[in-house]
Amino acid sequence: MTRAPRDIEDLIDLMARLPGLGPRSARRAVLQLIKKRGQLLIPLADAMQSVAVSARECITCGNVGTTEICEICTAEKRAIGEICVVEDVADLWAMERAAVFKGRYHVLGGTLSALDAVGPDELRIPHLVARVQEEEVSEVILALNATVDGQTTAHYIAEQLEPLGIAVTSLAQGVPIGGELDYLDDGTITAALRARKAM
Amino acid sequence: MTRAPRDIEDLIDLMARLPGLGPRSARRAVLQLIKKRGQLLIPLADAMQSVAVSARECITCGNVGTTEICEICTAEKRAIGEICVVEDVADLWAMERAAVFKGRYHVLGGTLSALDAVGPDELRIPHLVARVQEEEVSEVILALNATVDGQTTAHYIAEQLEPLGIAVTSLAQGVPIGGELDYLDDGTITAALRARKAM
Ligand SMILES: [Zn+2]
Ligand SMILES: [Zn+2]
Repeated sequence: MTRAPRDIEDLIDLMARLPGLGPRSARRAVLQLIKKRGQLLIPLADAMQSVAVSARECITCGNVGTTEICEICTAEKRAIGEICVVEDVADLWAMERAAVFKGRYHVLGGTLSALDAVGPDELRIPHLVARVQEEEVSEVILALNATVDGQTTAHYIAEQLEPLGIAVTSLAQGVPIGGELDYLDDGTITAALRARKAM
Repeated sequence: MTRAPRDIEDLIDLMARLPGLGPRSARRAVLQLIKKRGQLLIPLADAMQSVAVSARECITCGNVGTTEICEICTAEKRAIGEICVVEDVADLWAMERAAVFKGRYHVLGGTLSALDAVGPDELRIPHLVARVQEEEVSEVILALNATVDGQTTAHYIAEQLEPLGIAVTSLAQGVPIGGELDYLDDGTITAALRARKAM
């Protein structure tokens, strides 16, 4: 059995580590890249190099951007009073696609998990509590996935924020049991946000 | 709605053009890349750059490699007398994974297709006929997909090679109707090759 040359095999192995691509689809993708060297392979290599240099985490909310503080956190027209808490950046993007929330975000970076030994300090929960105390926040909306870990995390955060006397709400109607935000259509997210209820 | 910064959006758009990745999985993949900048994003950008420079089509068989004539065509121990004809490089790799064929290949670059107006000259069929005349070929094995276009192409090639008086065979048992080589397990490919029959 003759394998492909070393650097092509290396590229296939790296591609196969991307979520959604297995070894077979990685091989297909690499052949496609080689076939479309000018239109796809070189632009993709350049785009990756550029993102590798520019991408950084917003120090305020944890969103991905190219500046120390992200575009959402610095936008004049976004309400300072509302913070929407999400598990990861993909969920933040899903909320933005629904285009219904006009406040700012806080990205936890995951959920509490006894199994994976993820405690509050591994997430950005202490940072959230500090933000609520420092900024003029009137409502924290918990937009966490409707999974066991997501809901455990929501209840933990609600407890932490209770002494601060602000409204803590969570997405309600429309999020199916076991469902993950990033899989939902925009309308479902909009309905869930509109019908949010106090924790 | 605030979108991700321009260069991150550009990377997502390019990733979404890969086979097997849609817009949603492209976003997930890009977030993963940003999270694993050192272990994944930078190595992947480097690997793509390197393949963009090195990858080329073998002038003899059409395989992808890094030299003018590929490793298989130059390998001393591979039989000169047998040429296995495949539709594309992914099928060549599938044959190599089965590790049962010890000859050389000829990659057509597709199949004849009335619908897509692909004639013999768009493929490497004239080149195959020339190879058979120039090299000491005793058998051409047609390992084309068991699709209508694949079988039409196999019959066309068999006709072209008939006057040259060499054996023309095709993969037989084990290739399911409508099946594509690259989806088959190695055992099935091995069985099909062993039971090949004269056209
Ligand atoms: Zn931010
Ligand atoms: Zn070759």
